Amino acid sequence: MHAILDADYPCHLGFVRDGAPVVLPTLYARVGERCYMHGSVGSRPLRFAGEDAALAVCLAVTHVEGLAPARSAIHHAINYRSVVVRGMACQVTERSGALDALIDRIVPGRAAASRPANARELAATAVVALDLHEVSAKVRTGDPNDDPEDLFLPHWAGVLPVMRTYGKPVPADDLDLSISVPGYLTER
Amino acid sequence: MHAILDADYPCHLGFVRDGAPVVLPTLYARVGERCYMHGSVGSRPLRFAGEDAALAVCLAVTHVEGLAPARSAIHHAINYRSVVVRGMACQVTERSGALDALIDRIVPGRAAASRPANARELAATAVVALDLHEVSAKVRTGDPNDDPEDLFLPHWAGVLPVMRTYGKPVPADDLDLSISVPGYLTER
Repeated sequence: MHAILDADYPCHLGFVRDGAPVVLPTLYARVGERCYMHGSVGSRPLRFAGEDAALAVCLAVTHVEGLAPARSAIHHAINYRSVVVRGMACQVTERSGALDALIDRIVPGRAAASRPANARELAATAVVALDLHEVSAKVRTGDPNDDPEDLFLPHWAGVLPVMRTYGKPVPADDLDLSISVPGYLTER
Repeated sequence: MHAILDADYPCHLGFVRDGAPVVLPTLYARVGERCYMHGSVGSRPLRFAGEDAALAVCLAVTHVEGLAPARSAIHHAINYRSVVVRGMACQVTERSGALDALIDRIVPGRAAASRPANARELAATAVVALDLHEVSAKVRTGDPNDDPEDLFLPHWAGVLPVMRTYGKPVPADDLDLSISVPGYLTER
């Protein structure tokens, strides 16, 4: 489950508001037996939970790794790895380490290569922590599973690999162009 | 919002069970002003909603399109497009068209190039529909937004594009190798 969580950074966080489900995209990083979530989205459930309160949440992370077309429509499948974490999220007061973890999960090495957040910025930032107690994982790999009587149909079956890839870094319009692109961005 | 929904196929579906949030990954396809969701995951909320009932759900779709490292840690951003749909999901009894839409959204042209589901298979399949009434979208594009006083720091800033790509199709172990790979798989 750690490996699945560590292979990605976007997640979907669900919570209940006025009895109805809400799901929002946000970013996360696993550190030990916790996940940290961050950002303007993360602040939304926190407004309801408050500084000392905890909020029931469900965090889901899904990597799509392949399309698996079968000979029969019904057996078409997706290869994926996913983790779902349920529990009580609470607000983090020591935010600096969690923010560094979030940045380094998305771009390894970047936290040390940017201006650290100052006290004012940290105070205005929301970070949520969720312990990895109630965790489930689901993995599908390999070929589609056609019924034996369909194996001789003339339709192609197999797996089309799916991956996330990174393009060429595009400098900001206001970047001093004497600053070269760092290796941690070109080597992804 | 249609364009964002039509650009993807994995989603996260949230609902409430025993007062607590649940978020599960599943697949969807937009047809007109509805989204259809499918599969073993889709059947789980339906077991609670039943044939004639509706279940409060929240559907979230997120495309990550870029990493936007800023000079300051706090202004690091992700470029993305996301749609969140809230409403009452209901079970679909005419499943054949919805399943074709789901397959063709993931691999355009594939529904006609596989054995259609028979009555028994359709009866054992769960399809959920959610109307696009309460829909919100969020889009972030472009450069990171550093504070003016940080523009002269020596850190690279800009955008690293992120995309989903497809590899070379891998035939199933039991595939008759005289069946060539169809164009709708190699042209992705």
